[in-house]
Amino acid sequence: MNNGARLIGIGVGPGDPGLVTLNAIAALNAADVVAHFAKAGNASNARTIAAAHFRPGVEELPLLYPVTTEIPKQDAAYRDAIRGFYDGAAESIAARLDQGRVVAVIAEGDPLFYGSYMHLHVRLSPRYSTEIVAGVTGMSGCWSEVGTPIAQGDDVFTVLPATLPEFELERRLADTDAAVVMKIGRHLAKVRRALDRAGRLDRAIYVERGTMTNAAIKPLVDKLDTIVPYFAMVLVPGWEGRP
Amino acid sequence: MNNGARLIGIGVGPGDPGLVTLNAIAALNAADVVAHFAKAGNASNARTIAAAHFRPGVEELPLLYPVTTEIPKQDAAYRDAIRGFYDGAAESIAARLDQGRVVAVIAEGDPLFYGSYMHLHVRLSPRYSTEIVAGVTGMSGCWSEVGTPIAQGDDVFTVLPATLPEFELERRLADTDAAVVMKIGRHLAKVRRALDRAGRLDRAIYVERGTMTNAAIKPLVDKLDTIVPYFAMVLVPGWEGRP
Repeated sequence: MNNGARLIGIGVGPGDPGLVTLNAIAALNAADVVAHFAKAGNASNARTIAAAHFRPGVEELPLLYPVTTEIPKQDAAYRDAIRGFYDGAAESIAARLDQGRVVAVIAEGDPLFYGSYMHLHVRLSPRYSTEIVAGVTGMSGCWSEVGTPIAQGDDVFTVLPATLPEFELERRLADTDAAVVMKIGRHLAKVRRALDRAGRLDRAIYVERGTMTNAAIKPLVDKLDTIVPYFAMVLVPGWEGRP
Repeated sequence: MNNGARLIGIGVGPGDPGLVTLNAIAALNAADVVAHFAKAGNASNARTIAAAHFRPGVEELPLLYPVTTEIPKQDAAYRDAIRGFYDGAAESIAARLDQGRVVAVIAEGDPLFYGSYMHLHVRLSPRYSTEIVAGVTGMSGCWSEVGTPIAQGDDVFTVLPATLPEFELERRLADTDAAVVMKIGRHLAKVRRALDRAGRLDRAIYVERGTMTNAAIKPLVDKLDTIVPYFAMVLVPGWEGRP
């Protein structure tokens, strides 16, 4: 269609409203509709970060996950529920694009880096004009909050989901200069063991709610809980030869 | 010292002046001195991105690399020249901090992710109050410009410097879901061969000057040059099971 309709995936950064970019603000100013993901019953984090820049009278379109951790991810019921949810969300947005409107989807961090927006992007970008506003990732927010250089020079840097099997985490942590382990949630004890056997536990830093006002940072060796928030991260700084 | 002196490492994003954050602008407004790295004889890219936000009358402190690619990196002369340069740059900044001034160092991308700022940070943060403003990385700028999801769900994501030996590149490219190969420069032919043998060449995307107005994007199979700019990147998107 050639009627001004446009889908914009907007990264709003890791949590601090000051880490929103000028392009994100401009895109929100252009949006007729702002869509945001949240778990049913919860506020959208992306909305909390960016709401100050919504146009007065903008239509908000909350996209509420039907399930998050209630059903195991390997379960076909989970996959079906999630696929149906993204299909429906994409159709809600498509209906508004078909009216010639500009629809922004706001995303924590960067829209194309481990984000839910990507599920809408792959469904809608073949049919509609699409634009991405890059954002500051959650991991950048975390290492900046800690104030620790993460990777330098010829370092290899690896992002690992904590959901990987323990031996895979160990193998990969031993085979990289720098790493970030994401989505810690119920996997903290496993991640700690894998880092220990990889010989990297002493360097590891635990970060919870990086760049939020209530951020919690400590050496992983001192973080003895077994269950922590899903979005907590562990940083393993590289640059071992630093002065 | 407790006299208001502060060092701020500011990420100004990948190139588009619109990808500067509100916190970066606020920090530039607070800075008495703005330092920026450049190759002697060249304009600083970070300065070009952020200069619109410098305070009138701010002191600019250009930090000019004595060498970049003229001497091989393995050479002791290179290491000595670079170490002396960073020592001197840190002392120039320390002299201004000792006067109680706020010194901002602007950095392309994110200050703590493969950036020169880190060399100043490790020298000065033990002695002075230091703050980091996270930025949008160059790689986020590139995959956003292309509009391709890079990593999703349980993907492993790896950043590889193109300077690695060919067999290392091949091994690591075959062992990750998604990757970014950075600092392509003179290494394009090697990176292409490594991707081919890792079975990933068909997915690879070449990006030059991502988010700049003159960005160049093409499938790597169609990019047959052997020498390209140092800051060019190759993206290998993950999420192979995407709908």
